[in-house]
Amino acid sequence: MNTASNFADRLLASSRRLRAPIVAGIDPRPDLLSSELLSKCGSQGSDLASGYAEFGEQILTALSGVVPAIKVQVAFFEALGVAGLRAYAKVVRTARELGFLVIGDIKRADIGTTAEAYAEGHLTPGGDFEVDAVTVNPYLGEDGIAPFRALCEKHGKGLFVLVRTSNPSARDVQDLVADGRPIFEHVSDLVARWGSSVVGAEGSSSIGAVVGATYPRELVAIRARHPRLLLLVPGYGAQGGSAGDVVSALDDRFSGALIASSRGLLRAFRAAADAGAAPGPAVRRAAEEMRDALHSAWKSSRATRGQNA
Amino acid sequence: MNTASNFADRLLASSRRLRAPIVAGIDPRPDLLSSELLSKCGSQGSDLASGYAEFGEQILTALSGVVPAIKVQVAFFEALGVAGLRAYAKVVRTARELGFLVIGDIKRADIGTTAEAYAEGHLTPGGDFEVDAVTVNPYLGEDGIAPFRALCEKHGKGLFVLVRTSNPSARDVQDLVADGRPIFEHVSDLVARWGSSVVGAEGSSSIGAVVGATYPRELVAIRARHPRLLLLVPGYGAQGGSAGDVVSALDDRFSGALIASSRGLLRAFRAAADAGAAPGPAVRRAAEEMRDALHSAWKSSRATRGQNA
Repeated sequence: MNTASNFADRLLASSRRLRAPIVAGIDPRPDLLSSELLSKCGSQGSDLASGYAEFGEQILTALSGVVPAIKVQVAFFEALGVAGLRAYAKVVRTARELGFLVIGDIKRADIGTTAEAYAEGHLTPGGDFEVDAVTVNPYLGEDGIAPFRALCEKHGKGLFVLVRTSNPSARDVQDLVADGRPIFEHVSDLVARWGSSVVGAEGSSSIGAVVGATYPRELVAIRARHPRLLLLVPGYGAQGGSAGDVVSALDDRFSGALIASSRGLLRAFRAAADAGAAPGPAVRRAAEEMRDALHSAWKSSRATRGQNA
Repeated sequence: MNTASNFADRLLASSRRLRAPIVAGIDPRPDLLSSELLSKCGSQGSDLASGYAEFGEQILTALSGVVPAIKVQVAFFEALGVAGLRAYAKVVRTARELGFLVIGDIKRADIGTTAEAYAEGHLTPGGDFEVDAVTVNPYLGEDGIAPFRALCEKHGKGLFVLVRTSNPSARDVQDLVADGRPIFEHVSDLVARWGSSVVGAEGSSSIGAVVGATYPRELVAIRARHPRLLLLVPGYGAQGGSAGDVVSALDDRFSGALIASSRGLLRAFRAAADAGAAPGPAVRRAAEEMRDALHSAWKSSRATRGQNA
């Protein structure tokens, strides 16, 4: 893999090859681990951290060749302190070795040399936490993004900037209206501008946006405004977003967005294990079902619009 | 120390006892370490991380009894991976053992169980990264704050929410105008509302706001709007904020805000060490000079307003 090639191009190619615009989320929590794994690894501190690493690796093996990308939520590892972050490093390294594009869901943001330090920690080749892309927060403006963008340019990395989050109180700040438009739309315009230096051969920038599936109208508005903007779409499944809610994010090649699912897939792991079945195949099946549901919804939506699917 | 007592009350008491509304920032970077420390510890990876820990501990010893609070910037440690975070854990533990109030400058924000995980990692007693307060980002609204606030209530911890950051492109999002007022003013109102459940005996909430010294007019506006809101004020010194720029943040007892200085103090360390002098006393003197400059500016400002200082 040429890590210096454009992130957006790599993501689009991989997503089309698997016909799966999906990023599987690894968000380990004790209630998602199987009782077998918990009793083997222990339920606290560094023992639990080992359990998270083993859980992550089983999920990764199960999903190899089905989804192009993995999103690892650092917060659940960080909750366990140093041992947790050692497990995080292990999971992201394994994911990259298996050929997934790996998104560190870190939602960091700072300025100047501090933002450089975060970018260095998560996007520099060879670092413990190296991933292919990270999520970042736009509240500090371009200064908070530029140091990460520099590494997108240098190392073929990517960013997803929070635009419209999937939670109910996203409205508190993101829906304030300036010049007749909500803040999140202004932020989507900023993201498009910030990413103009890292546009790949396919016409999409390596700097994309996070837009929640739980706000389908806002998703439609942002897609209409920015047809080529890569979107990372959380909130599918457990948070309430349906396949019909997210198809507007997808382009005419069934790509252009990564629909994220964490709990939906991870719960299949525990359900199978607790029923005495192999958890890996259950997770894989859940991902394939999600892929097929998205594809059906995408085909229907294209038929409605009178296009060939 | 009763960690369950209100954070705002503890902070105000400590700040008044030392007559120093100051938080010293530990932002280790190789160019701030002395050549002696670099040659002893090494300049890369886990060796550099050990150097950061030793640097931090020397700074802490020097400032004990001079400033009430320490702000540790996690990004510089995170840049070094797992070994860096082990050093971070060591520095924050030492700082708390020395009696400082410790602010983890982490600027995290997420939602639901993910925000709970961050709050658990940084505010739960006994964790590797336990501190007295953390900085957080408001873009996700109250959902991103509530899990941290729950631990403020339970364990006497504190939060500082980004309202007006000190960097030039703070304007990108924070100055967009909704209903005739900039976003950062709306956010300051949200912060005051979010903090109403953790107001201490002194009338200040344990949920305060970050407002940069580099925007003195905005600082005046926020202080006028929220007289009792605890403020964390970065941008003094190296970033250009003067003592005169920040006095508006202080109340009539020379408290109510923590003026942050990192590079100003840390540069004294290296300058002394490289000149063959003891770096500890130089850092201590720099903090005392900062305290005296703030006190003079505060007295002048009160004289101008016709009050007794």
